[in-house]
Amino acid sequence: MNDSSANTMWGGRFAAGPHAIMEAINASIGFDQRMAAQDITGSRAHAAMLAATGIITKQDAQAIDQGLVQVLAEIETGTFAFSTALEDIHMNVEARLSDIIGTPAGRLHTARSRNDQVALDFRIWVRDQCDAAITGIESLMQAFLAQAEAGADWVMPGFTHLQTAQPVTWGHHMLAYVEMLARDKGRFQDARARMNECPLGAAALAGTSFPIDRQMTATALGFDRPTANSLDSVSDRDFALEFLSAASICALHLSRFAEELVIWSSAQFRFVRMSDQFSTGSSIMPQKRNPDAAELLRAKLGRILGATVALFTVMKGLPLAYSKDMQEDKEQVFDAADTLMLGLAAMDGMVRDLTANRATLEAAAASGFSTATDLADWLVRELNLPFREAHHVTGSLVKLAEDKGCDLPDLSIEEMQNVHGQITAAVYSVLGVQNSVASRTSYGGTAPANVRTQIARWKEVLK
Amino acid sequence: MNDSSANTMWGGRFAAGPHAIMEAINASIGFDQRMAAQDITGSRAHAAMLAATGIITKQDAQAIDQGLVQVLAEIETGTFAFSTALEDIHMNVEARLSDIIGTPAGRLHTARSRNDQVALDFRIWVRDQCDAAITGIESLMQAFLAQAEAGADWVMPGFTHLQTAQPVTWGHHMLAYVEMLARDKGRFQDARARMNECPLGAAALAGTSFPIDRQMTATALGFDRPTANSLDSVSDRDFALEFLSAASICALHLSRFAEELVIWSSAQFRFVRMSDQFSTGSSIMPQKRNPDAAELLRAKLGRILGATVALFTVMKGLPLAYSKDMQEDKEQVFDAADTLMLGLAAMDGMVRDLTANRATLEAAAASGFSTATDLADWLVRELNLPFREAHHVTGSLVKLAEDKGCDLPDLSIEEMQNVHGQITAAVYSVLGVQNSVASRTSYGGTAPANVRTQIARWKEVLK
Amino acid sequence: MNDSSANTMWGGRFAAGPHAIMEAINASIGFDQRMAAQDITGSRAHAAMLAATGIITKQDAQAIDQGLVQVLAEIETGTFAFSTALEDIHMNVEARLSDIIGTPAGRLHTARSRNDQVALDFRIWVRDQCDAAITGIESLMQAFLAQAEAGADWVMPGFTHLQTAQPVTWGHHMLAYVEMLARDKGRFQDARARMNECPLGAAALAGTSFPIDRQMTATALGFDRPTANSLDSVSDRDFALEFLSAASICALHLSRFAEELVIWSSAQFRFVRMSDQFSTGSSIMPQKRNPDAAELLRAKLGRILGATVALFTVMKGLPLAYSKDMQEDKEQVFDAADTLMLGLAAMDGMVRDLTANRATLEAAAASGFSTATDLADWLVRELNLPFREAHHVTGSLVKLAEDKGCDLPDLSIEEMQNVHGQITAAVYSVLGVQNSVASRTSYGGTAPANVRTQIARWKEVLK
Amino acid sequence: MNDSSANTMWGGRFAAGPHAIMEAINASIGFDQRMAAQDITGSRAHAAMLAATGIITKQDAQAIDQGLVQVLAEIETGTFAFSTALEDIHMNVEARLSDIIGTPAGRLHTARSRNDQVALDFRIWVRDQCDAAITGIESLMQAFLAQAEAGADWVMPGFTHLQTAQPVTWGHHMLAYVEMLARDKGRFQDARARMNECPLGAAALAGTSFPIDRQMTATALGFDRPTANSLDSVSDRDFALEFLSAASICALHLSRFAEELVIWSSAQFRFVRMSDQFSTGSSIMPQKRNPDAAELLRAKLGRILGATVALFTVMKGLPLAYSKDMQEDKEQVFDAADTLMLGLAAMDGMVRDLTANRATLEAAAASGFSTATDLADWLVRELNLPFREAHHVTGSLVKLAEDKGCDLPDLSIEEMQNVHGQITAAVYSVLGVQNSVASRTSYGGTAPANVRTQIARWKEVLK
Repeated sequence: MNDSSANTMWGGRFAAGPHAIMEAINASIGFDQRMAAQDITGSRAHAAMLAATGIITKQDAQAIDQGLVQVLAEIETGTFAFSTALEDIHMNVEARLSDIIGTPAGRLHTARSRNDQVALDFRIWVRDQCDAAITGIESLMQAFLAQAEAGADWVMPGFTHLQTAQPVTWGHHMLAYVEMLARDKGRFQDARARMNECPLGAAALAGTSFPIDRQMTATALGFDRPTANSLDSVSDRDFALEFLSAASICALHLSRFAEELVIWSSAQFRFVRMSDQFSTGSSIMPQKRNPDAAELLRAKLGRILGATVALFTVMKGLPLAYSKDMQEDKEQVFDAADTLMLGLAAMDGMVRDLTANRATLEAAAASGFSTATDLADWLVRELNLPFREAHHVTGSLVKLAEDKGCDLPDLSIEEMQNVHGQITAAVYSVLGVQNSVASRTSYGGTAPANVRTQIARWKEVLK
Repeated sequence: MNDSSANTMWGGRFAAGPHAIMEAINASIGFDQRMAAQDITGSRAHAAMLAATGIITKQDAQAIDQGLVQVLAEIETGTFAFSTALEDIHMNVEARLSDIIGTPAGRLHTARSRNDQVALDFRIWVRDQCDAAITGIESLMQAFLAQAEAGADWVMPGFTHLQTAQPVTWGHHMLAYVEMLARDKGRFQDARARMNECPLGAAALAGTSFPIDRQMTATALGFDRPTANSLDSVSDRDFALEFLSAASICALHLSRFAEELVIWSSAQFRFVRMSDQFSTGSSIMPQKRNPDAAELLRAKLGRILGATVALFTVMKGLPLAYSKDMQEDKEQVFDAADTLMLGLAAMDGMVRDLTANRATLEAAAASGFSTATDLADWLVRELNLPFREAHHVTGSLVKLAEDKGCDLPDLSIEEMQNVHGQITAAVYSVLGVQNSVASRTSYGGTAPANVRTQIARWKEVLK
Repeated sequence: MNDSSANTMWGGRFAAGPHAIMEAINASIGFDQRMAAQDITGSRAHAAMLAATGIITKQDAQAIDQGLVQVLAEIETGTFAFSTALEDIHMNVEARLSDIIGTPAGRLHTARSRNDQVALDFRIWVRDQCDAAITGIESLMQAFLAQAEAGADWVMPGFTHLQTAQPVTWGHHMLAYVEMLARDKGRFQDARARMNECPLGAAALAGTSFPIDRQMTATALGFDRPTANSLDSVSDRDFALEFLSAASICALHLSRFAEELVIWSSAQFRFVRMSDQFSTGSSIMPQKRNPDAAELLRAKLGRILGATVALFTVMKGLPLAYSKDMQEDKEQVFDAADTLMLGLAAMDGMVRDLTANRATLEAAAASGFSTATDLADWLVRELNLPFREAHHVTGSLVKLAEDKGCDLPDLSIEEMQNVHGQITAAVYSVLGVQNSVASRTSYGGTAPANVRTQIARWKEVLK
Repeated sequence: MNDSSANTMWGGRFAAGPHAIMEAINASIGFDQRMAAQDITGSRAHAAMLAATGIITKQDAQAIDQGLVQVLAEIETGTFAFSTALEDIHMNVEARLSDIIGTPAGRLHTARSRNDQVALDFRIWVRDQCDAAITGIESLMQAFLAQAEAGADWVMPGFTHLQTAQPVTWGHHMLAYVEMLARDKGRFQDARARMNECPLGAAALAGTSFPIDRQMTATALGFDRPTANSLDSVSDRDFALEFLSAASICALHLSRFAEELVIWSSAQFRFVRMSDQFSTGSSIMPQKRNPDAAELLRAKLGRILGATVALFTVMKGLPLAYSKDMQEDKEQVFDAADTLMLGLAAMDGMVRDLTANRATLEAAAASGFSTATDLADWLVRELNLPFREAHHVTGSLVKLAEDKGCDLPDLSIEEMQNVHGQITAAVYSVLGVQNSVASRTSYGGTAPANVRTQIARWKEVLK
């Protein structure tokens, strides 16, 4: 997993054989075989460059290339025998290449080191995950957009503190997640652009005296440019940390909607019905319809945040350039990436399958004096009360209704005028939830017209 | 992994079959099969209790017991076919039991639920890991004690800020880790005692109306008592969090000695030589002797701390009783426990194999004005200077020596008397590092005599 | 905050004065003045011991003691002028002591160092916080007990996955938190016992050659014994990490009840009404009754967990003995301790003020087929069906009721017998929630009788 | 800190006065007064817009504006009396405004809420910190560049595993940090661009029915555009999380150089000498020269990572829109930002003051067979050996030299030829460290010529 080895490929340097426990703690092949395709792709580009620059012969390069293609095929078909004694994916591939093509295999490692090799493989792997995250996010945005479109004008309670605050539209609530996901996408795009420099050619840490062409390998591997400092190239794991940070924020968004789904699925809320696909029953309580998938998604932030903390802690205070501590990077990122992709896919399915109980949502929106703000705003607008006074008047009216056990529209005009003499019957027009949401036409507001405009905008963006 | 299921064992509740992605996110059999032995042990105790209390017949209990023994044997010999469709270890075991013994298998789940079953299995698993940690810690304490005994009177620099501060003994430094590990052991013992209550019988969350005997199962499974509240029993994961916290502190201790090993192994320090077993070479720099194992141990705190953060984050704000989020508990604890046990074993091997370069240590201890404090203390003791004045005089003498490029003992008595007239030649006796360490006889001090007393004490404790 | 200083008290070692930024990053007096009382208590014990062992004169000790009493009085009355140039609490106190009593002040620091001084002060401070946490926890246990006693037989839904699972009693739910808090208390007790060793006398790191009596200072300061290894004494921060870990678990428990309060306070649940004291209104939505205090408590785990991660990360890989990094320990622990104590007090108030809506709870408990398990258990007990078959029959009955839009007791005996012919009218007795909870008499079960027994037990324990 | 209040400004909604503990846990004025300038800037823009759109009169707007200017002046001059009973900065400012200008003050809160107000204030605050971070990073890049330029051709050991690997140049090592910092700068730039949308006008959560002009306020406050979804606007804290993530990565870089400084300052390394400004002495060991500032910087990652974990944990699973939990955001971000800015400034000073011991560095570079790779590369290049064979030959030569206790150039040509017959005397030319570094001319390699090119490039970028 770096430039180090306890194995016998390095000649007779170590008299004693590797201890079993050392092998257990040291070997990375158990997990870094996931980077086999990246490793071989990188080696092929390296060999082609070595030939193009005359460092090795074209014949050797061809033999290496064909051998590597065969190794990859063996890995992909499951016939490759991974060896823990060979420690890592790099040595496993090279040893097998040596079996297949003999001497030329020994020329492949010219002008490189395991340090830049692992930096390259891992960077390509993470870059691929950025792309996968972006794809998953875009699909999930589409799922939320479809929900938004279906219920652009359905009224539901807008909550603060899980208390009904003001009516909003279902479409508006769905679009809030589209906004979050769009930022997530932007973060993965930025991270991808920043990491898209090729470390290959940094060698162990100092660069090399061979006349290599780093621009050539960079281009061949889809990078924007080669990295500019060899020490940094082999000791940098920023790309992994930035990926983990972006993944944590994205997982946080998923946890928020997951929490809403769990609460909304309760017998007390019944705002939504999750599909059978994403619910489960109970071994002892047959009536249960558990939002397991939502709960698991709510939990996944913990897993990804844990991986993030792990890698930051591992990297803390490491002197340049490569330290073996850095071998701990991969399992954390692998697990976080798998978790994120699974989470995005599961949320995608849940959102597409989700059924909103429109009537329940609307009834809930209409209770709890949710249009009190509309009343206060009417007092400001129509009676020109200062906001703070309007607020005070509204508070008194709400208290009156609460004491009577009725809702605001149920107060008589006389009762209202007892609180403030200038109130007129026109006030009743703003006390309905449909009027309330329709009136919120400020940019970004919840009015159905706004929601439809935003949906159209996002559809264009995602086309 | 709890009371939920999307599978067909629960009858026709769900029309649609489980979606592949739901299966991927929901099934726990991929990891909870590690609790197979605990699951079967628990089920055997449960069945025996059901028979003893007359809830099931003795014949059924016997059939169940024999069936479970067979299932365990199949799992241990690797012939058991785990099924993801059956979600978790509990359902896998029960389904196979049903294959083997038929109808009586259906009586095993009487008066329990997957909620208390998983709480039981996981608690036994974590309790076993406490025992394993204690064993590993005791062995590592022995390893440090052996080092301490070998070098009870070897002098080395005591550092603060990685600057030579005062001479100490190698044995004393090793004993510092014995103290840390003893606290670690205490934490695992306390955690074990606190978690040693049996949740079996809590059923889904409310207890049961069957006349079960929870004291009987608790005793059979080695618990001190049954848990006292069924809601708490199925929603509590304190035992896992406390295990993780104790593991994090222990891993922190390992990270500190690992850092010392990495620094001490550098060409600049050369304080120690790690064995071939725990060092590695380089693919491109054949002369390297890398302290890989120490670096990996330094990193392991990150991994365990990450798992700790993950589980705290997962559990945050979960309402009672069981939520599916809690299924995320096991992989974190499994990984942290594996990491800790491997880390303890690796450190054990490294410490036993470690060779201290006694001459280098002593030379380093003697440089850097390391006995300046002894000089200051002499001024206080012999000349009755206030400490702060003695400190000032010593500072001036150090500056004088530094300017001359010599060490404190190299200053002439005249030079010393120029700084403070009452200094006598007797002062030279405290400027040697051997005298310095021998003089630190206060309880807990570094004097070799103290070190030997402490070693004897610890040997007695660990006997 | 340790043995280091850039200030002028140390004589002419540094030509250049401390840079403003260095002072900003280096000085700890801004926060460690919170340990003034601990610092002075420790110094008084140290001075008394120095006199008892003849290291300083009784006159000097007396002067020091009187001076320290005066310094503490000045600090407590707010007339003490703290100086950033003097860096930390230790130097501030000593400098003022020197102003007051002159030369003898310079003898106080004999046979100690700032390293063991800060280790002592901080340890006493944390020990005090363990005591405070235990007191706060016991009070909160009493608050939950009072709720449990009031509602020992009130029926409410027991949830899994926030879905109604089985009826439980309010008292039982409250007692679940008593169990959690009892474990919290145990953790703080264990941590306190483990940390209760006195580091004073470890001096800088090596012990001292002065004939000090560490047992005397340990006893005077309430410790069980002096620490046994001077290197460990000054480099150990386990006590802080263990405090933070215990605080994190306790905060997690608070977050869980806080989440329940937030959900239960929603218009959809209305299970509880929080008092005006712990609710707030809204500037724009006058009708709101926000559970702000509960939300803030839910959040506090984040703050304490953050502090825990911070200190683990700070301490990772620090070589022995003291490193300045460790100065970062105090602010984290101060903030976490303050947060915990405030959190315990706030939860205490909220719980005592809390009003449960008994009728709403009971109605919710009766809906959602919550006695399906009782039905299944009846089938097992009375008809001797295997559990799995009973479960299947129950599932069919639930489905039938669900399709009819009724509850289980509303099914006719004929409808039931259509599903399973042996069902008799006796089954209706187990379908009521009162019967259900009364029947859960297994140890730890939710039956009111059990709840009352547990309350009595806890009252005895807390007396 | 949001739309909630227990205070009396909201009219008679709450009979009971706020409890002391509630005030303690609820009030944010203790910390959010740091956002006073942002709050007033936002209010002034809001008032100007209200007038421009005719929602309030120009006279009222003018009175409000003048009043706000006066309030800010009072705050800046320290004459403002903050009140905890008024909870937060928003209410404190508005109450004072009301004192000064009377009734018009009550019109300022028209068409907004504390929810969008705090979202705005905090976002501006964090945006300012992005700018501050960028400035601090650029200055630190300049400091590293100055070091790089001074020592573009100084040779030092390049380490892996803290073992000498290959010679590199001091300038190259310094440039590695320039690369890291450049990525840090990019992250803050990206975060700034992503957060630069104005939430003002989202009101409580639903938008408003007043005809506000959100583009106008956005432009006035330097935002690129208004936010597009009002629910998201008040519940989003991505900008804080992204800031914390970027700060954590930057702090990680600082921790790495800090660790190098601590190790390099040890008596065993003596690679560098830190200035008096950033070193400290000892109260008991006058000879010490402690790298305190570097140690504190090494620790700061813990603090910032802790804040990051805290906020992620706080935000986990919060349903939309505003929840009071979010009030925990500010202290974490304030502390992390302060820590980062202080850390950047301190590192800046340390780097500028740092003196490298060129002779020590070069001597260290020449030891430890650091040119073994050059030898291996020579064998490949000149003798056309496959890399793996060249590596094996080199390993044998190193072992020979090690056994003889000499360095590679000290082996005779005969000794070399005994290992491989084709080696010629030309090999000696690559065994010197100056030749070694000069030969590493691959792009990104350590050759002095490369280093100078990179310095020129960076100077151009930073101009």
